[in-house]
Amino acid sequence: MTYALDDAIALLERTPSTLAALLRDLPDAWTRANEGDGTFSAYDVVGHLIHGELTDWMVRARIILEQGETRPFDRYDRFAQARESAGRSLDDLLDQFAKLRRENLAALRGLHLQKADLDRRGTHPILGTVTLRQLLATWTVHDLTHIHQIARTMANQYRGEVGPWHVFLGVLRCQGHSD
Amino acid sequence: MTYALDDAIALLERTPSTLAALLRDLPDAWTRANEGDGTFSAYDVVGHLIHGELTDWMVRARIILEQGETRPFDRYDRFAQARESAGRSLDDLLDQFAKLRRENLAALRGLHLQKADLDRRGTHPILGTVTLRQLLATWTVHDLTHIHQIARTMANQYRGEVGPWHVFLGVLRCQGHSD
Repeated sequence: MTYALDDAIALLERTPSTLAALLRDLPDAWTRANEGDGTFSAYDVVGHLIHGELTDWMVRARIILEQGETRPFDRYDRFAQARESAGRSLDDLLDQFAKLRRENLAALRGLHLQKADLDRRGTHPILGTVTLRQLLATWTVHDLTHIHQIARTMANQYRGEVGPWHVFLGVLRCQGHSD
Repeated sequence: MTYALDDAIALLERTPSTLAALLRDLPDAWTRANEGDGTFSAYDVVGHLIHGELTDWMVRARIILEQGETRPFDRYDRFAQARESAGRSLDDLLDQFAKLRRENLAALRGLHLQKADLDRRGTHPILGTVTLRQLLATWTVHDLTHIHQIARTMANQYRGEVGPWHVFLGVLRCQGHSD
């Protein structure tokens, strides 16, 4: 499957409602559980996605379009949500994520990107040269890696409860953790 | 986290709306894509979950409660959906899954299970002795393993599109496939 803006937007615009359907009013035993020190709970993931909407995807897209490779992106703080979400309810975070995503997708559509624009280049502070197409594809896969992570993190809470069925449940063997 | 019926039901009742939020009207390029021969697309997963509602979870719970270990469960057909979903729209499958899950959770609540009931035993045709608690915990983790699988399967469609970012995206390294 090659990158297509309409397909990618169709997925990006569904993530807030997917997370709301899964997480809103779910007991804290599920949403606040993580996989050990330095790992994310579902609650942490929503804060992390908010931070991405504020500082990463569209910010970096504009850097590529306005300044190209001359201006490297700022580094991304994977743990910003520990400060930024402090004391906030999950409901509140889900609402903010939905609002920011809606605004960012409206801004993305407003750029009226042409195919040639997707080949434009920027500079990632660690990865080096990247294209706008790669950035926008990564935005989509980043949503999916965190849906994948939430499903694994919650599944792991019942690791000791499923008894012999653990052999049939691939999620309990997942080592595909994001760095 | 130890098994608690209310927590488990809270998760089980959110799966249909989670899948509807993610998949309804999403382009076929996402929902019909799989990971190669014999693997499931998102469309296949919804059919598989329907088959589970019809033949597995509550059917097996009733066998445990009514016949105990003397009557082994029937084997589960992991590929039944290839026949049963044939020609049906994803919308139709999502609607049926939601209806069956609602009915099964109403039936589960109607059993008014006590803690001691959760220790009652049945016989799995491959795994041997299992408890009702393990069966019900597995129902929950089975939902999560398939949400996890759908996220991975869709992410893999953009494996070639994210460029150097693949190193940060754990979902692209996941080997946690369900048997």
